[in-house]
Amino acid sequence: MADFAPVVFRLALTQGDPCGIGPEIVVKALQKWQSDLPCPLVLIGDPAVLQEAGRRFTSGKTEKFLSAAVTLGPGDPLPAPEQAPLVILSVSRLDPARLKPGAPGPEEGKAMRAAIEAGVRLCRGGGADALVTGPITKAAMLAGGSQHGGHTELLAELLGVERPVMMLMNDRLRVVLATTHLPLAEVPKRLSAEALLHLLRVTDQGLRQDLGIEKPRLLVAGLNPHAGEGGRLGREDQEVIAPAVARARAEGIAAEGPLAADSLFARALRERADAVVCMYHDQGLAPLKMLDFENTVQVTLGLPIVRTSVGHGSAPDIAGQGRASPQSLLRAAEWALKIAKRRKGVMIG
Amino acid sequence: MADFAPVVFRLALTQGDPCGIGPEIVVKALQKWQSDLPCPLVLIGDPAVLQEAGRRFTSGKTEKFLSAAVTLGPGDPLPAPEQAPLVILSVSRLDPARLKPGAPGPEEGKAMRAAIEAGVRLCRGGGADALVTGPITKAAMLAGGSQHGGHTELLAELLGVERPVMMLMNDRLRVVLATTHLPLAEVPKRLSAEALLHLLRVTDQGLRQDLGIEKPRLLVAGLNPHAGEGGRLGREDQEVIAPAVARARAEGIAAEGPLAADSLFARALRERADAVVCMYHDQGLAPLKMLDFENTVQVTLGLPIVRTSVGHGSAPDIAGQGRASPQSLLRAAEWALKIAKRRKGVMIG
Repeated sequence: MADFAPVVFRLALTQGDPCGIGPEIVVKALQKWQSDLPCPLVLIGDPAVLQEAGRRFTSGKTEKFLSAAVTLGPGDPLPAPEQAPLVILSVSRLDPARLKPGAPGPEEGKAMRAAIEAGVRLCRGGGADALVTGPITKAAMLAGGSQHGGHTELLAELLGVERPVMMLMNDRLRVVLATTHLPLAEVPKRLSAEALLHLLRVTDQGLRQDLGIEKPRLLVAGLNPHAGEGGRLGREDQEVIAPAVARARAEGIAAEGPLAADSLFARALRERADAVVCMYHDQGLAPLKMLDFENTVQVTLGLPIVRTSVGHGSAPDIAGQGRASPQSLLRAAEWALKIAKRRKGVMIG
Repeated sequence: MADFAPVVFRLALTQGDPCGIGPEIVVKALQKWQSDLPCPLVLIGDPAVLQEAGRRFTSGKTEKFLSAAVTLGPGDPLPAPEQAPLVILSVSRLDPARLKPGAPGPEEGKAMRAAIEAGVRLCRGGGADALVTGPITKAAMLAGGSQHGGHTELLAELLGVERPVMMLMNDRLRVVLATTHLPLAEVPKRLSAEALLHLLRVTDQGLRQDLGIEKPRLLVAGLNPHAGEGGRLGREDQEVIAPAVARARAEGIAAEGPLAADSLFARALRERADAVVCMYHDQGLAPLKMLDFENTVQVTLGLPIVRTSVGHGSAPDIAGQGRASPQSLLRAAEWALKIAKRRKGVMIG
């Protein structure tokens, strides 16, 4: 390599639901970072909402830092990261005084979606190296005209990826989900060996590429109690999950299962498995969040861009009260930067 | 009270599946207890199998202790606990040399059932104050002619109790289960507000009576992700669980829910809730066993007798290898004695 100038990375952060805890945790994270910014940032959202959150939830020093940010509209050219450590990219013009905490409407839903779209454009165009998303609210996204209520589905559409994989993780455990926001009764019908094989492939590949794990060990949870107990407690474990695992193993993926979910998580911790492959939302997230709620983050595997997210929701119950912790956002940004560096080959090992 | 003679308690222990780890953990527990027996014991099972397990898995001292036990047949009169610290009650005559580790047949299934029946008779007749059961194997129970493969169902029949409640617990968390060994697809159909109300009542009453908790705080898990998210992810949370919780609260039971299961367990630990009410097997057991597998035990609430059990199965994969830990059995016996004392009013507070 002829060029020895250091690579400067930049993260794009969306503020999430302006009526939720998103703006609060963004400015609180900024306060934490202020003396030691991990890298240049582009905050994507509503300048007035972010400034107001700075006034309410941080010290005067952070307020000043926010006021000094370069504020841009959607069409404006982005300065080089070295020239502007903090940029606010405006995608909406909401009136902070009129926002109802915990009760976003269609207007706010549109703003949430616009921020995600701008973040994707920024990452695709090279303006940012990774996208970190704040928590949104599904109902308002839909009310605002989005076809997708959730990040993962919207990102899949915007990036032309058919089935990205939702991984949630903290320092003790990683889980990936075969199904996400479905009524429990729908889960058994939606599982297919083909989709599970895809999940195993993307997870294996993602852990290698983004986390630098050489040969990821995946433990696959059963769907039914005792993983179906030989068919006496449901047939999906034998008929859907087992064939997918067998095919993955034939491809060299170190997957094992289906394993009885009640003892699986204890084993995953004991053996330091690289990920637990779960069949449904609560199967994976209940144990994971119990282990360490605050440090749980989401990483989307299988996308052309690097994307991480907080591990929690928009928390309408405590929105606007100043009680939200930025911890998960801080960790999500930290992971985004690590993964971006790894993808560019800057960090090895 | 005129009588100041100390009450002597006695526990009945069934050996469980003779081809599983049951006999091994019983004799290992005995070895642990030997110098400090918590109370007189009646081991119910097969004398030859237990003696052989003693030879294989314990020191010569425990072997001698076992040989010195009073061995009785089903009809024999039971000596007073003061006179015989260790009794072996024989309910089968199996040949230890012919047992296949991990592969019990109908004969062994009959022996498992006979031990449970004898244990219930003993407790009902006053010969023992509590029943502690070793792990059985469902398929062999059924092959041996039992209508019920599991302990809870068989105990319900033998004791004429319609719906006992399975509680699993360790030192960090307690969970009760609304459904147990059902294919996941069956779970949503089997939930009813009436059965849940019953579950809440028995749990509330059981925690007061058996664990001495004055006003138990119960957190009730939702069935669907995000507890149904207002009906968008399934209607059972609103239509079945919420009404049951409302009725329980109207009766003075401190229940709260349905709560999103993914964050519920983190909260239950933080707030030291007295129990988490779960809708299905893995929802409760995966987080619980992850917290502390070895010390997890089962306590059946709502029975006229005191009954506890190990929190694990008969472990066919490691049967006969000497690798099984008696820890859960030790804890199950400890809890049985505690609860028996509390029910008799010996232990207060």
